[in-house]
Amino acid sequence: MNFELRDGERLDDLVRDGMRIIQRRDQFCFSVDSVLLAHFVSIKKRDKIVDLGTGTGVIPLLLSAFGANDITAVEKNPVMADIAMRNVRGNGKEDVISVVSADYLRVRDFFSPASFTSVVVNPPYRSVGTGRMSEKEDVAAATHETTASLSDVFCAASYLCAYGGRLTMVHRADRLGDLIAEGRAHRFEIKRIRFVHSHEGENANRVLAEWRLGGKADVKVLPPLVVHRPDGSYTEEMLSIYGKEIHE
Amino acid sequence: MNFELRDGERLDDLVRDGMRIIQRRDQFCFSVDSVLLAHFVSIKKRDKIVDLGTGTGVIPLLLSAFGANDITAVEKNPVMADIAMRNVRGNGKEDVISVVSADYLRVRDFFSPASFTSVVVNPPYRSVGTGRMSEKEDVAAATHETTASLSDVFCAASYLCAYGGRLTMVHRADRLGDLIAEGRAHRFEIKRIRFVHSHEGENANRVLAEWRLGGKADVKVLPPLVVHRPDGSYTEEMLSIYGKEIHE
Repeated sequence: MNFELRDGERLDDLVRDGMRIIQRRDQFCFSVDSVLLAHFVSIKKRDKIVDLGTGTGVIPLLLSAFGANDITAVEKNPVMADIAMRNVRGNGKEDVISVVSADYLRVRDFFSPASFTSVVVNPPYRSVGTGRMSEKEDVAAATHETTASLSDVFCAASYLCAYGGRLTMVHRADRLGDLIAEGRAHRFEIKRIRFVHSHEGENANRVLAEWRLGGKADVKVLPPLVVHRPDGSYTEEMLSIYGKEIHE
Repeated sequence: MNFELRDGERLDDLVRDGMRIIQRRDQFCFSVDSVLLAHFVSIKKRDKIVDLGTGTGVIPLLLSAFGANDITAVEKNPVMADIAMRNVRGNGKEDVISVVSADYLRVRDFFSPASFTSVVVNPPYRSVGTGRMSEKEDVAAATHETTASLSDVFCAASYLCAYGGRLTMVHRADRLGDLIAEGRAHRFEIKRIRFVHSHEGENANRVLAEWRLGGKADVKVLPPLVVHRPDGSYTEEMLSIYGKEIHE
């Protein structure tokens, strides 16, 4: 594998199929949430998948390792889109993953309606005015709803998704009300949901959710995912999600 | 304590403050769900509580044991309302619990709007046409949405509840989408939620949920409640919910 590294970049291990990933310290680096989301996505053989706000492309790379073979990665930050392209090339995934440098709020300019059977997104989580927000505009856009509200995300997804297709997202657990009610307002019905608790006995801090466009109301609430043991180390399930290499 | 028992009735132990409860085998008997719901209700000192579809009055009796002192129990089935009244008298709770024999779908005929600060309901769970339904009309009404749909329940609750007041419900976990989206359509915002799993590692089968009328979107997702150990016995938490007497 041959990765083109530029100034300020580092090459990290993706701990899956020997893949590696270029990241930059001064930009948003991929998080546990992206890894959990990639694992939560249900992949069907003929899925045409789109990942909205792909960043360095970590989610498409992981999905490709799990059997997806038609993935479009959309990223509006040109610095990140360039890294994503080099990550796709470096891991030899050019036939599986296409990177499109575009703002997913303007999907109508780039894609035909209902072009995909599966939409995946790890969106900005926080409402503007809450939590610590980076002074760097492009980093803030990855964490806060400065440029894309949850409603914007559903709008883009409902345009891109074919009827009967899926939307899969990771989000803050405390946004559950908006996730379900705004989803339904965009014809996305919640079908599968899993809560992520940092420690056993604590409230959930993240939620993994799958909707179906035009689906009927009937949801599976999966067993919770607990991230840490009481001593702070990862639980067995987290280790298996992260890949055997960390475990051994 | 002095309970008036009629033909076909039996006197069961409520396992809380020495309370007992009259039930009939040919009617809907109180379930684990009612006990879980009563435990999940957050009780404030000056709460005026209404329990919709109280059955034998098990929820008001438990709430009174947990400190509630102003509870109205509404039951449309006259056979059950009569039992509920005798249960209130038998347990000496006449000063705390009033039983009203009325159909909660016609609350406008019986109560002023916004009369209560807390609405509690263990509603019929199943859509008509799903699951086993009793041929006895009054028993079917307690389990299936023959007479009250989820939307009807929200309607009644939003009429009875004061602005800023709470609605607390137990329901099937697979109805989560309707619970949150229809709740919001009736101005009830989900605020606190807990999933009940029959066994660890299984999908949730019940959900305990608290809404606030006019609340803002921000929900606490509590740690899950697991009912059974792998050997089928109750977990420690379930034993503590059911009361020490069973535990010892």
